[in-house]
Amino acid sequence: MPRYRLTIEYDGIGFHGWQIQAGLPTVQAALETALFAITGDPTPVTGSGRTDTGVHALGQVAHLDTRRDWTPDRLMGALNAHLRPQPISVLRVEQTHPQFHARFDARRRRYRYRILNRRAPPALATGRLWHRPQPLAADLMHAAAQALVGRHDFTSFRAAECQAKSPLRTLDLIHVHRQGEEILIDLAARSFLHHQVRNIVGTLVPIGQRLRPVAHMAEVLAARNRVAAGQTAPPDGLYLVDIAYEERT
Amino acid sequence: MPRYRLTIEYDGIGFHGWQIQAGLPTVQAALETALFAITGDPTPVTGSGRTDTGVHALGQVAHLDTRRDWTPDRLMGALNAHLRPQPISVLRVEQTHPQFHARFDARRRRYRYRILNRRAPPALATGRLWHRPQPLAADLMHAAAQALVGRHDFTSFRAAECQAKSPLRTLDLIHVHRQGEEILIDLAARSFLHHQVRNIVGTLVPIGQRLRPVAHMAEVLAARNRVAAGQTAPPDGLYLVDIAYEERT
Repeated sequence: MPRYRLTIEYDGIGFHGWQIQAGLPTVQAALETALFAITGDPTPVTGSGRTDTGVHALGQVAHLDTRRDWTPDRLMGALNAHLRPQPISVLRVEQTHPQFHARFDARRRRYRYRILNRRAPPALATGRLWHRPQPLAADLMHAAAQALVGRHDFTSFRAAECQAKSPLRTLDLIHVHRQGEEILIDLAARSFLHHQVRNIVGTLVPIGQRLRPVAHMAEVLAARNRVAAGQTAPPDGLYLVDIAYEERT
Repeated sequence: MPRYRLTIEYDGIGFHGWQIQAGLPTVQAALETALFAITGDPTPVTGSGRTDTGVHALGQVAHLDTRRDWTPDRLMGALNAHLRPQPISVLRVEQTHPQFHARFDARRRRYRYRILNRRAPPALATGRLWHRPQPLAADLMHAAAQALVGRHDFTSFRAAECQAKSPLRTLDLIHVHRQGEEILIDLAARSFLHHQVRNIVGTLVPIGQRLRPVAHMAEVLAARNRVAAGQTAPPDGLYLVDIAYEERT
């Protein structure tokens, strides 16, 4: 059976996240419904990982097997035609080696969090960013965030319902900068704990507002206690940007 | 009566354009309804100009008079509170001189048109750009567009229902460039004819696809005939960016 790798963009608004849940609209369910319509076979889709309700993706990756051979081009066209008008778009389809695994082979996941930092609420990007009207100092947020880079116990930033065996994660990069009215927070790691990005963002905001010192972030990390961190930022501003995979020989 | 100048962002989706029309949701109607709720007085709002159904604004300008004095800050907060959850956001409120006129004093209007130029349809920006899957050469579009700069008879790019007395307009600037998967077309003029921007964009696209030569644009302009130009591009990709006003002494 040929295996295909998909790169997928979706709008988190209106979906109960990536993963199939009985009776709820999810991205995975929409893809599997479209694939069944196209191939006539039940076709499970394996994503690189879940995204929560309301979280967006610019480059989610998934793999699937089909009984018949499809040209990647035809499969992409058929998928996008069947997915319409749902806000899911298949950006790329590639035939890949039969051992490729979208989840286990992922080596680096990149996320971006967008904050709209102006007094007036958003009219054009409702549900697509977090509106914080108080002025935020991106440079202070960036300085504070550097305490998180490297291998750490991220218990303070982990959701109670997180299913990972270990709270140890290696954060490769966190970068905070202002672009016009927006504060953009870029992160990269092999993997993230549940709500890790949103809890980091929720902890950075009071530092950007100068309600907490830059050193606060290192203290929260060292506390290894969810209570030490800030609020969980809403899913609206969170984007799964892309996923890098190991090159196989 | 104090006069206020508003700067307004709105999402064209869901509105029948700017201008009040009986029984239809429009941006002007939403603003006047909010102002009546706030002030208790019928308060007409005068915009810099109309925008069509589906056209967005990042910086529409309007003026209004109130019977009582309001601090700009309070008026802005009250307006945004009353407008919620409609996708209209008042970005700035300034008290201005009593002769300021949002329409007649405008000296330069800037528009941007966004084309998504990739095979896959948009998932995150549906209704906010025009999807053109065939590759477009931004450099050819830019070269062709330069024929339009200056004072010309724009009859070829004017909607049949255009109410302007003269088809003469002075286009100050048209700039086409690629930004990742998007083709951005920026235009500036003191004023535009009805559908002028959308008809220009619809004429540029076949040039970008190499179906028409660069010289085609000058020929269409010289024809002074709407039939010579291309299709009217959809409103989805069109943004009123901002409006510059004469400085008064």
